[in-house]
This record gives sequence, C-alpha cells and structure tokens, in this order.
Amino acid sequence: MFLERIRSEGLAHWSYVVGDQERAFVVDPRRDCRVYLDVASRHGAVITHIFETHGYEDLLLGSPELAALTRAPILRGRRSTHAYGDVAREGDVFALGDLKVRVLETPGHTADGLCLVLFHGADDPVAVFTGDTLLVGGVGRTDLFAGQEEELAGRLHDSLHGKLFTLGDHVVVYPAHGAGSVCGGGLVDRELTTLGYERRHNRLASVLDRDAFVRRALAERRPWPPYFREMERLNRAGAPALVAPPVPAPLSADQLADLLGQGAAVVDTRSPEAFAGAYIPDSIALPLDMLAAYAGWFLAYDRPIALVVEHSEDAEKAVRQLARVGYDDVAGFLRGGMRAWEASGRRYACIPAIYAGDLERRLQTGPDFTLLDVRTREEFEAGHLPEAKQVFLGELPDRLGEIPRDQPVVTFCGSGRRAITAASLLKRFGYDDVADCFGSMAACAAIACQIVAG
Amino acid sequence: MFLERIRSEGLAHWSYVVGDQERAFVVDPRRDCRVYLDVASRHGAVITHIFETHGYEDLLLGSPELAALTRAPILRGRRSTHAYGDVAREGDVFALGDLKVRVLETPGHTADGLCLVLFHGADDPVAVFTGDTLLVGGVGRTDLFAGQEEELAGRLHDSLHGKLFTLGDHVVVYPAHGAGSVCGGGLVDRELTTLGYERRHNRLASVLDRDAFVRRALAERRPWPPYFREMERLNRAGAPALVAPPVPAPLSADQLADLLGQGAAVVDTRSPEAFAGAYIPDSIALPLDMLAAYAGWFLAYDRPIALVVEHSEDAEKAVRQLARVGYDDVAGFLRGGMRAWEASGRRYACIPAIYAGDLERRLQTGPDFTLLDVRTREEFEAGHLPEAKQVFLGELPDRLGEIPRDQPVVTFCGSGRRAITAASLLKRFGYDDVADCFGSMAACAAIACQIVAG
Amino acid sequence: MFLERIRSEGLAHWSYVVGDQERAFVVDPRRDCRVYLDVASRHGAVITHIFETHGYEDLLLGSPELAALTRAPILRGRRSTHAYGDVAREGDVFALGDLKVRVLETPGHTADGLCLVLFHGADDPVAVFTGDTLLVGGVGRTDLFAGQEEELAGRLHDSLHGKLFTLGDHVVVYPAHGAGSVCGGGLVDRELTTLGYERRHNRLASVLDRDAFVRRALAERRPWPPYFREMERLNRAGAPALVAPPVPAPLSADQLADLLGQGAAVVDTRSPEAFAGAYIPDSIALPLDMLAAYAGWFLAYDRPIALVVEHSEDAEKAVRQLARVGYDDVAGFLRGGMRAWEASGRRYACIPAIYAGDLERRLQTGPDFTLLDVRTREEFEAGHLPEAKQVFLGELPDRLGEIPRDQPVVTFCGSGRRAITAASLLKRFGYDDVADCFGSMAACAAIACQIVAG
Amino acid sequence: MFLERIRSEGLAHWSYVVGDQERAFVVDPRRDCRVYLDVASRHGAVITHIFETHGYEDLLLGSPELAALTRAPILRGRRSTHAYGDVAREGDVFALGDLKVRVLETPGHTADGLCLVLFHGADDPVAVFTGDTLLVGGVGRTDLFAGQEEELAGRLHDSLHGKLFTLGDHVVVYPAHGAGSVCGGGLVDRELTTLGYERRHNRLASVLDRDAFVRRALAERRPWPPYFREMERLNRAGAPALVAPPVPAPLSADQLADLLGQGAAVVDTRSPEAFAGAYIPDSIALPLDMLAAYAGWFLAYDRPIALVVEHSEDAEKAVRQLARVGYDDVAGFLRGGMRAWEASGRRYACIPAIYAGDLERRLQTGPDFTLLDVRTREEFEAGHLPEAKQVFLGELPDRLGEIPRDQPVVTFCGSGRRAITAASLLKRFGYDDVADCFGSMAACAAIACQIVAG
Repeated sequence: MFLERIRSEGLAHWSYVVGDQERAFVVDPRRDCRVYLDVASRHGAVITHIFETHGYEDLLLGSPELAALTRAPILRGRRSTHAYGDVAREGDVFALGDLKVRVLETPGHTADGLCLVLFHGADDPVAVFTGDTLLVGGVGRTDLFAGQEEELAGRLHDSLHGKLFTLGDHVVVYPAHGAGSVCGGGLVDRELTTLGYERRHNRLASVLDRDAFVRRALAERRPWPPYFREMERLNRAGAPALVAPPVPAPLSADQLADLLGQGAAVVDTRSPEAFAGAYIPDSIALPLDMLAAYAGWFLAYDRPIALVVEHSEDAEKAVRQLARVGYDDVAGFLRGGMRAWEASGRRYACIPAIYAGDLERRLQTGPDFTLLDVRTREEFEAGHLPEAKQVFLGELPDRLGEIPRDQPVVTFCGSGRRAITAASLLKRFGYDDVADCFGSMAACAAIACQIVAG
Repeated sequence: MFLERIRSEGLAHWSYVVGDQERAFVVDPRRDCRVYLDVASRHGAVITHIFETHGYEDLLLGSPELAALTRAPILRGRRSTHAYGDVAREGDVFALGDLKVRVLETPGHTADGLCLVLFHGADDPVAVFTGDTLLVGGVGRTDLFAGQEEELAGRLHDSLHGKLFTLGDHVVVYPAHGAGSVCGGGLVDRELTTLGYERRHNRLASVLDRDAFVRRALAERRPWPPYFREMERLNRAGAPALVAPPVPAPLSADQLADLLGQGAAVVDTRSPEAFAGAYIPDSIALPLDMLAAYAGWFLAYDRPIALVVEHSEDAEKAVRQLARVGYDDVAGFLRGGMRAWEASGRRYACIPAIYAGDLERRLQTGPDFTLLDVRTREEFEAGHLPEAKQVFLGELPDRLGEIPRDQPVVTFCGSGRRAITAASLLKRFGYDDVADCFGSMAACAAIACQIVAG
Repeated sequence: MFLERIRSEGLAHWSYVVGDQERAFVVDPRRDCRVYLDVASRHGAVITHIFETHGYEDLLLGSPELAALTRAPILRGRRSTHAYGDVAREGDVFALGDLKVRVLETPGHTADGLCLVLFHGADDPVAVFTGDTLLVGGVGRTDLFAGQEEELAGRLHDSLHGKLFTLGDHVVVYPAHGAGSVCGGGLVDRELTTLGYERRHNRLASVLDRDAFVRRALAERRPWPPYFREMERLNRAGAPALVAPPVPAPLSADQLADLLGQGAAVVDTRSPEAFAGAYIPDSIALPLDMLAAYAGWFLAYDRPIALVVEHSEDAEKAVRQLARVGYDDVAGFLRGGMRAWEASGRRYACIPAIYAGDLERRLQTGPDFTLLDVRTREEFEAGHLPEAKQVFLGELPDRLGEIPRDQPVVTFCGSGRRAITAASLLKRFGYDDVADCFGSMAACAAIACQIVAG
Repeated sequence: MFLERIRSEGLAHWSYVVGDQERAFVVDPRRDCRVYLDVASRHGAVITHIFETHGYEDLLLGSPELAALTRAPILRGRRSTHAYGDVAREGDVFALGDLKVRVLETPGHTADGLCLVLFHGADDPVAVFTGDTLLVGGVGRTDLFAGQEEELAGRLHDSLHGKLFTLGDHVVVYPAHGAGSVCGGGLVDRELTTLGYERRHNRLASVLDRDAFVRRALAERRPWPPYFREMERLNRAGAPALVAPPVPAPLSADQLADLLGQGAAVVDTRSPEAFAGAYIPDSIALPLDMLAAYAGWFLAYDRPIALVVEHSEDAEKAVRQLARVGYDDVAGFLRGGMRAWEASGRRYACIPAIYAGDLERRLQTGPDFTLLDVRTREEFEAGHLPEAKQVFLGELPDRLGEIPRDQPVVTFCGSGRRAITAASLLKRFGYDDVADCFGSMAACAAIACQIVAG
C-alpha cells in the first residue's frame, strides 16, 4: 500500500491519498485537487472514495470537484451540512482490496466529525485519520459554535477517550492539521505520532478527567477570523470548480496604480525586510508563507486583489494559496517587481526597523511611543515586554481606537513578521510614524530584556 | 522536527534524515549521498551525526563520504568491523536540540546491530530506527554467518522481546528495508507501522516462544548472492568516494560490439517484452527495477559493463543503481537504443513468449520441454505447476547441469520478469530453444491451471 | 527581446513566443496552449497579439482558447476561412514597444498564407516567421487543394521570389514546421537558417525558373491523411477548449478488454520491440514518437481510445499528442502496463522479428512470402529491395486487396518502426503469419544487400 | 543537427553545444561544465571537440575539466597562452559527420581570437561562432592590453571586414556574450542576428572606415575589474577541477558572526529592498543577478565568503556563480536567512530609501549632501542629474577620498540596484549617513527631473 501526505502551506493543512496498485481513497482534499489524481495515477490507482472528516472553517474542500473528475462518491458525517455527498455512519466499512476503512463518529471539534480507521490485512487497525479530533500535541478547538462550547468540549472528550483511544496505543495517527494551524492550539511541530503517544503526552487529550478537560478547553480562546463564515458558506454548497489555479497576469505599474485607485487590495508577498525597504503606499504586507493564514482577516471577497511579488513564480503560489481560501479575483501581479514601480517614478515608502537593543534603550528612557504587540493573547501571556500593548494582528483593524494616533508606534510580535503586516495596516489607516522591531520577542529574549508573564 | 525517508529503488533500502531547523542526523546513508545534504539544507539544518544500524551485506554505505562532506562523526556498533567511525554503546545518548537519540544494542541479524530510539521533547520514545532488527511484517534474516545461525536467531529474539518491544506499543518503527529486500522474508508492502502493531502481527516477531522463533527462523533459507562478499569487503574499508554518479558515455553499435568482444557484460535494462522482441546476442536481461537486486548475482567486478536502455535517462539511473552495489566500471550505453543496433545491420535475436493458456495445453499433451521455474524455493513451495523444475534465478549459472540441453526450455516465475533474465542467461550459455512465459504463475492462477504446493 | 520556439513533438510543429519585458506575441499556437502563458509570464510579458500564418490541416490551432485566456486579438489572413479573429492585410504593422511585425501575404501552400516580418529597432527586418511558405531545406506542399495544385505552386514561387527573398539574405527564418512534418518534403534537420541560405541551398526555393519550380512541385505527391478533413473542419470553427490535457484514468485489464469488446481502439505506444515481444490482440502499434503523426490515418473520431503504455507518464504525453489532432475521447490507459495484462491470464501475442541478414537469405532461396515495404513512394523509389511490394503505411487499410492472405508477410520500412504498425494492422485484419524486419532498409544497406532504385 | 545555447547568468556568457546524433562539439565551455555532458547525452551524442574562441578575462573556462571527462581535444588559437590544448590554425577543418567547422583567425579583441565557421551539408557556411570578435550590436572591447589598444582595434577591423563579413550576409552569428557583458559596450538585448544584419546595423562593426573605427574603439573605455588578472592567471594553467559546485553549508548566526570577525566577506544576495530593510553590519550587498558581474571588484581571493540569501536555493546559485569567477572558498550561508540573524538578538542596520521626487526637492533647496552616481562614465555622460558626482561602482573602494565623510551621501545609479552595493560599501568604510535612491535615473526621467548630458 502507499500513503502520501499532501501539505498545504500556510494553512498547515494535511490531506492524504492512500491506496494500493488498483484503488485509492482521499481524505479531506483541498481545493486545488489535481495533485490527488497525479499521486494516484503515479501508483496506477484509481480514486474510488473521497472522505471528509468534517466540515472545514478554515479552507475550501475540493471534494465536489474531485468527485466530478473521478466519479468517486464523497462520504461525510451524518451531521454534515454539506449539500452534496453520501452519509457515512458509525461502523460503516469501505473495502478497497487489502485495505479497509471503518468509520468512527467523533463529534467535538464539530458536530459532524468522523475518524477513519485504516486496516491493512489484519483485523486490527494500523492507522487512523483523525481530522481535527486529535492533532499532534493538541486537539481541534471547540469554540467554533457560540453557545455550544461546553457541550462540544465534553463530546470531544467522549470521542477521544470513549472511542479513539480504545483502538489501541499502536495505531498511527494522521490528523488534518499540523503546527501553525488556526484550528488547534499548542500543537507540536512533528508529523509522526500514535494514539499511545498522544494518550500520554498530548497537552489536552491526555487529560483523563472529563471536567478538567472541558475547563481547559473552555479556557482557550483562539482567534476567529471573519473569513470562516465565507468558508462555511462555500463549503456547504461545494466550492466553485477550479481545475487548476489560473496563470496570473503581469500588470504594469500604471495598471496596478489604477487598480489601487479603484479599490483593489494590493497584497505584497515579499519578505518583511523587502517590504520595509520599499513598499507601495496602501499595500498590505502578507509574506508568502503567511498569506493563506492571514488573508482571511483583511481581504474582502468582493474586491479584486493585485499582487507584489519577489519572483514571478511567487505570483502563481500566491494565486493558489488565495484560491484555497476562496479568493478567486486576482487581477494580476506587478511585473518586474517592486523595482518596476520604483523605476516608474511613482512614490514608495519605507518602514524603519528597530533593533531590539535600541528598543530596550528607548523603553528605558521612558517610552514616548506605543509598543504594539500583535501576537495572540496566549502568546502574550506566556511572556512579553512590560510596556507592551497587546492587540492580536487579526483584530487590529477593529481595534484601532486603542492605539493613539499622536505618537509613534513600534510593531512587535514573535520575530517581526506579523509586525510588518501590522505596520502596513497602520500606515494604511493613516498612522504616520510606524516602525517594526525585526527580531521582536526572540531577539529580546536573546539579549535578556526584562520579560513579564501573564 | 522533520523526518524524510530516502528510498533506494531496487534494493528496497530505506535511509532517513531527521532534524529540526538547525541540526540533522542521517541513518544508514546510501552511497550516492548528496541527497542527504540537499534534504538537510532544504530544512536549513546541518548534518551533525551519521548513524549506522549495522554492517550491510547488500549495498554500500555512504557514511565515509558523507562524513567527509559534513565533518559529522559516524556512529556504529561495538561489534562493527568497519575500519572507520566511532563506537556507540548501549545507552549512549546523542542530543540535537529538542531531539535525542538513544542507542540500543540489538544483535541478531548481525552481531553489530543497533536500534536508535528517538525522543522529541518528552522522555518517552516517539520512534525507533530498527535497521534490520525489525522490518514491517518480518525480521532481518539470521543466516548470513555460517555456523552462527542458531545463536543469532536466539539473540534476535532476545533483542526484540528483551529490549525493543519494551519501549512500548506506541513507538513508530522506521526499518532499513521494505518489501522486496533480500534481507528479510515475507515482508509486508507498507511503510508505516509501530512496535505494537508488529508485536501482534509480525509473522516472526510476534512469536513469543524463543525456541519456536529460532526454529522458524532457521527454517527460512534466503538466497545469498555472491556480491555480498564484495559489499562486506568494501564496506569494511569504506566505499570509494563517488560524489555524484558519473554521466554515462553514449556508445556506438560498433563500440558496444567491441566491448562485448573484449569480455564486457552487456546489460539490457529494457522491459522484458522489449528484450523478448529483439536483443543483442549474449546480453543479459536485467530490467531497470530488477537491476540493483540481481546485478550482484551475475556480474563480475573486474569486467566493464555496457548498457542497453530504453531512454538515455535510464542509463543514468542504471549507473546510479550499479554504483550502489559497487559496480563503478560502466563503459557507457548504446546510443539510439536497440534501434541503432538493428539499423547497424548487426545480428539480433528474439525470445518467443508463451501464453499461460498455451503452456497449459502443451503440458497436457505431455511436455517435451523443461518448464524452468526460477522463483525462490519458498515461493515455489507455496504453489507451482506440477511439471515445473525449480532452480532459483540467482543460482542458475551454477546449476546448468540440471537443465537438459537437448530439449526446449520455457522459463517461468511469478509474472514473467525474472523469467526473461533466466532466458537471457540460458541463451548466453548456449541453449537454443528458450521461451518465456509472460504472466507465469499469476496468469496460471488467473486461468485456474492445476497448482500444487510443497 | 526574447524569442522562444515551442516544439510539438511528433508533428514537428514549431510555434513561437516573442516579446520584450512588457508585451509578447505568439505565432501559430498549438491547442494545449498554457505553455505560451508560462513563457510570457516568465519574461514578465503580457500576450497582446496572436498571429496565424495560415489555416492548418495537420493539427488544431489553440488561438481561440489562448485569445479567451489573454483577451489578445487573433490576426489571420484575408483568405482564411476561420470563423474567428481579425484580418491582417499586406503591409499591416503591429508595434509592441521596440518590436514591430509587418504582414506579407504569401499564398502558395494555402491561399491564406502570411509571413510575419520582425523588426527590432532598425527599419530593416531581423527575422521572418514563414509559416509553411518557406521551410528549412524545402517549402510547404502545394497539393492540398485538388485542382489548384498548379496555380498554388506558381503563386508560391511568386511569394518566395517576388516577396520573401526581397527582404534580404540576412533575415533569420522561423518556419512553422521542421523535418519530419507531413507538410513539406525533403526537409533538412536543422533549426537555424536565413533567407540567404535558403535562397541558395533550398531544394525547391532555390529554383529561380517559375515553370521548373511548378513542375518539380507538381511531381511531388505527399501522403494525405484522412484526419486532415477533420482538422480543417475543427480549425474553421475554432478547436474545442482544452485548458490543460486531462489526467488519463488507469484501467484494469478487465476494463480494457471490455472497451476493446465495445469497439474502442487500443493504441499501444510502447517501443516496436516491446510490442513485438507481447501485445494485446487487435491493438495498434503506434510508438509514442509516431503517435501524433500517424493517429490520424487509423483512428476514428467517434470511437473511444484506450492506451497501452510503458510508463504511466507516457499516458499523459499520449493524451496531449492525441488532443493536438483532435482525439479527445481517451478512456484511459492500462494500469500496470502490459505486465498487468499478461498476469491477468488474458491472451497476448508476439510478432517475430527477422534480421536483415536472414531476410536476405530467405529472399535468395526464392521468396514464399510478401515483403511489404510501407515507406512512401518517394522513399521507395530512392532505393528498395528488388522483391519488395510498396504500399504506404497510411494507405494500408485501404489496399489490403493487394496483399495475399495465403502467404506470410514480412513488413519493412526505413528502420522497422513503421513496419511494426503495419504488422499490427495486418494482424488486426486477420493475417496470420506476419513478421517485422527490425533494422529494415538501414540494416540492409549496412550489410550491403542488393538495392534498386526507381 | 542540434544547437543549444548555454547561458551563464550574470556574466551574460553564451557557450554552445552543437552536434548530430553521434558527435558534438562545445564552444567556450564554462567552468561548471556538466551541463554540456547532459545536453550531448540527451541527443545521444559524444563530445568529440572543445573549441576556445579566445582567452577569457571575465570568467573561467571549463575546457580542461570537460576534456578530462570526455577525452575530447581542446582546440585554441596559435597565440593562446593556455598551457593546455592543441593549436587550431586558419583554415583548419574539423569534420563531425555532416557538420564541419572551419577555423578563422580573427585577432582584435585579443591576439588569439578565432571564429569558428559552421557548415551543414553545403559548402557554404550556415553559421559562425564569433567569440568576442562580433557581438550583437557591438564588438569585443580592444582595451584589455595596455599599449596595444590601437593596434588591436585596427586588427579587429581587419578581422571583421577582411574575413568575417566575407562569409556572406546570410550567415547566422553566435557570439560569446550578450547584452550586459563587461566585454563589449552598447550591446543589443537580442540573441538572434546574422552577419548581414550586423554589417549594416552594428554600432561599431558597421563602420567601414578603418581609422574611424579605431578612433571610436579607442574612445570607449570600459571598466577593468581587478579579478581579470586572476582569471587570466587561472585560465592560463587551466581552472581547478570542480565536477559540480558543492552544496553550501548552512551556518548559524553565531558562526556567521565569527567568520565576519575573522575577516570573511559577508555577501548578501537578497534584493536591494530587503537589504535596505535590514542588513548585517559590514556585509556587502550583491543581489544574486549582479553577483557574478561584480564579485570580482570587491572580493579578495584569499578570504572566505559567507552568504546571506533569501531562500536556501539561492545559496547554491551563488556558489555556482562565484565558482565561475574563481571564488571557491565559500564557508556557507546563514541558515534561516536574515530573520535568523534578527531573532538571534544581534545588531542589524537599515538603509533609508529616497524617492526620486523627494530627492529632487532636496536638491532644489540646496544640497547639503553628496549625490553619488555610481554608473559608468559612459552612462553618466548620456544623462545625469546636474548635482551628481560620478564614481563608477567598481572603483568606489579606491576613490573614497573624493567623497566627503562629513555630509550625507545618497547613492544613485540606473534604477537603484548598483546604488545599494555602493551604499553597503560606504557603510562598511565608515560613512554614517547613507541613503539609496531606488528608481534612480529611471525614476528621475519618468518624473521629468532636469537631466544634463556630457
């Protein structure tokens, strides 16, 4: 048998193709789904089943399109609200030659959650696809449905301890997300794990007491980006067919300026340093590896997007990442890159960077500026500079009132990357004097600045 | 952390690069070792340790060259006969940031065998590199050292049940070989497994009784190709540096004919059907995916090799595979392929194929030919045609005396692939009338021929 | 400026993307047209113009789809019958920055033929895209329109000597086809040339006397495959959109057998030797590099096609090549290759090969067989074996009456490749005893067989 | 026949592989020469001849290594000072099947210059490899040998008009360098040309009068980078063997800091904007596409080099480019990129960018700063801002005395790229207040600043 993990960068989403030399199934396909056909075909296998472990909030599933291309049925949970597909129920078994998939209903992260238990030959599971029920080092968040948090957390504990862990310690775990996902907190950056390892070492899943588990789950509040609503809506109907992400069109500086004038969002995917060195006024800094994760906080679905990229290949990557979260209206990318804009004689701007050592000195002499820490509350509480004001990056546009306009702002985060997005937003909203602390918390820790917790 | 499995085709050898964003270690590097540098560099990591789980018989290790390129130490078992490297002893721990590797001495397959236990954060192992101590569905063979078979089999049982399985069911297993390797029998074609799964379902490792285990291990006799001796000798000193496999030279039909005349081995890596359709007299059929596994049975180390390939890219693949088992003297490949030979006006020959249905009829009317089954004794005993004569492919050159020269021969195996190699050898040794049964056992089973066991 | 030549294998078709860092134009795009977007985008250029040098008979143009993707206008000749696009007239000039394209009307190969003269800076042409008006070493055939051969040949002479060559010897020539194309005879296998070089050394274009040119053009009769009619019809309306060629589906041996039973064409793209070694009864041998050029002779447009390939990647290549000549109904490819068919227990067959030396001996003892030479009349007349019967491969299905069914047939061509297609067709049409002479004419010449001309 | 152009980025060097399906020759191989083997092998050809059109000053030839790998002879001019190879004399002919190469001695750019005339079939040349004798739009510089400038310029005119152009207008030209090379001025950015086109439109080669030609050639003074001396020395002996450029080692921030402390050169290949946004104090900005062309001005051959790159793949590209100009001692690259440095808590710095519009205003109010234009004198004289001080980038380290240390400096060039290198050098030499005008001349022209010539 073969098993390949398909990683969707930015969203830390993992989907899977599993099969033998004849048949294959796919778990939770992403929207740009040609990759599954390629993998299956390379192994000589036909895709005969598509499984959805649950309804996604953070990305578009490619099940409808993949089903259209393969004529394979889509199997989803009883409680799934998707308008398409067939229901897979507790205990249902799907056989593909030597392979067998058995369905476990495991509500908790969502009400429709499934785990898919894999057998190979023996009548003892060898692996399980856990969706967001069990992640490496953590579990799927249970705060997605207002008012049901407590109930869902409890049901998640039941699913874990009443069902999943009873499969045995020896079962390999394949979750739907890895570290960096917005769908679970405190995840461990490792791809391999087993039920036994998680039962003992998972930050949350190892908590045996149901109440204690619920309390700890409720205590966690994770960011809830506004685009979740759109993902839900689109996934329910089935994401629009994409076939393959389109080749983005090169734009001249003039065309880009016109688009900007007409209300398009200009998204700059270059590195934070490059953005700081020179950027197009009113553009938003979203470095390529942050794009999929943060686009949904700042970009409207009804406005075109224009890109500024380092290399033209990056434009294709950006288009693909945006498509995964439903942004299909990409007008193109600035051809020739930032250099073309500069050479066109159009105005650009810079954002000065402040070295952590200098920041510390400025803070000691009495800060006449706002030190804006845009990490999550969780991260902030684990350790921050005493003078810092915390506003999570995603919520920044809604909480500008908390940031004084009459004094300079220094943006700050874990290492200075989210800080550049924050800086670009502040500039866009009219803040004059904005600097970014590259290095941020990591640098402050390295030079032993005073750090407080809580 | 990251963990990448590097697969060496043909030999079913698996090596590993594991690390975080700073440091990485490699387990059992193959000879063409640039791939490890590439993988580590892609993750931004420097290779700081090279581990050898045991001395290899079936391929050349690239440890010496990789060590020269990285200045990383090579760690090997106390009983290793390798002239290089440092000794890693039971309980030794090597730390690389969050990762930790602890050494288990697990003799059995060989006397110097190690398992390498991997920790990530917690003080509980998450995975183990088992070398040939434990494979998926089987164990490393214990018949490599004449006279020590029983002792080694017993020690293997001790290593498995006294040490390895005590790590816990939840530990993920990364062995040195997969299905198709000559180093273990009855392996399962799957990459993922755990100690718990193997403890319960492994054909041999699940046998709790030591004596029963030893009896069953002793009952297995696996082929012992002559090149093992050369691998041992070369590995002991450290394989000659290779950097990267050379670009093979294109040869004209004239040059190839000259080489053949001077005693070079002409190895034809095309498909069995293409060989059967037209081949160069005296060439040996070794389809590309069989090359690494079977070259060592038939090719001398002191004679040059010339290749006949389907596409010129295949020549590079063949050179790489041959280098992995120590054949460095490849004179080149026939440019323009078999077609160039045909167009040159030189003689070629064909091997007729016999459809299983026709073979059955011919057998029923009283066979006036030898039906030569070249599978292993193990495979043969599991089921064969009643009239078949078994001689394992690798031993064919030494057992020609058992095959009458005065009647036709039909070569036969699992599906007709090894049979083409057998046919090419028989032709080379002067047998006149040789045919290949494409489909062989698989086809006979499909059309319900009479099959006997034992 | 940049200029990239896009080669379509099999059809020897050359199209071009030319531009600077802002704008690009495309000449004669092929149907699978994403490549032009990729090339232009790599140079940061937008495609602003699409030129058609003439209406094609031998392949589908991708102009309509490329225009839809880029919104670039399509420019074609006044006499073009295409239902889309704008007319470009003699002397029309299209400027793209420093580049300029001027239109020459050059009827001859077809009535609508254009040449596109390229200027870069200076007011003196640097290159010319000649479509099929002028090829390397030859000219476009003038026999496509029955009854107009003489007139068209004369007009071609006028176009060459009255217009094209007046641009100057120094102008680089970029034609629409290379050696191996069915659109011109006696072409030279070289990509680079100039008007001056062709004016002096082109087999036909160097003939100054109009009447002599017409006589020589009329004396050439090139094969006219039946699919030309379909290409004309489809190109007139604009080829159906393709976006990207689909991923072909793997088929089991059962499914392939069913398709064959239902009238599908099974096309085997493996090498001639592999086909000869074992093939599926009733399949047609069309090695991958012959596929695009010969499919149109033998395959019906209203029947599905199933493929037998060496590697699964070849299936994608085959689908792409078939799409270029309008065959979109490819049901899939045999997964696991020929080996899977053999292992399934289904019948297969072989075609014996005859070495040229043996053939010669058999001919000398008085041939009791038909020696069938399937090369073109032109090739045949340049030299053949005295006993050979000539029937051009493409016409074979219509001329079976000339080939006796009661004696063996040996198929023969330039080197044995077309001969395998002929052999597969004869088998399909019920001929029992068919062999292929691999090496064919090339081998006979090499061993100094008697060869006659005329 | 086939002809492939191999482009070496940065140096604008073009080398060639030409052959048929049996034999190939290479013209002016670069040092990392495996590419020629790959190309020849792809066409099934063996490299049988290596030609050097002349001794190179600007890069290392790979002839010795390629000869060692292929056993092909190296052919060079009579006056070549290379310690290896055989002499090819005027009129010598080398035949490779249908192809023929005839030698022309064409001194001028250097004393040993050859042109290689290519014939294919006919006894009339189809193409010529012109080395630096004739380039697209220009000719090879004649100022490389002090005291011989006038003589060499005259001999170049003789070579062009007495020999090269007599081959005929129709001959296609393949030169050794393209636009951007330091070996010739005023080159046209186009790859295709012919003798006839250049005879009429080449800025210098079109000048018929010998004296006028010499005067114009002498009037041109092109930069003479110090590394030329080293290239000469190394080429004379034959460049050290390289096989393939090594995989560069990842370095931690600590290791990089140590290297810097020990005198290593830290070369930052990121974009100018990224460098400006944050850079390591004392590092030199050499964006990847400028690296090969400018390294030789600033880097010592006896000191190790450490790299700062955007992506780890860039490190390999940088190593390759440095190897082409003889820098083999690359210690590694900063792993994790600039971000890792920032996170380590080490100091970094920024260079502010000045928009052209703001620059203009600052100049109008009376400049209290040095506007340093680092373009060549030629470019400067074609148009510059009135207040600018010109010092060519390459000469900056030697001419610091001309740049006041007590006032700010704004660096300036064509579009702001060379200006970032200048800014990094000034910072390294202790200038405090340095800014870069991104957009530079291009932007000033676009917004209609006052520009003066001469």
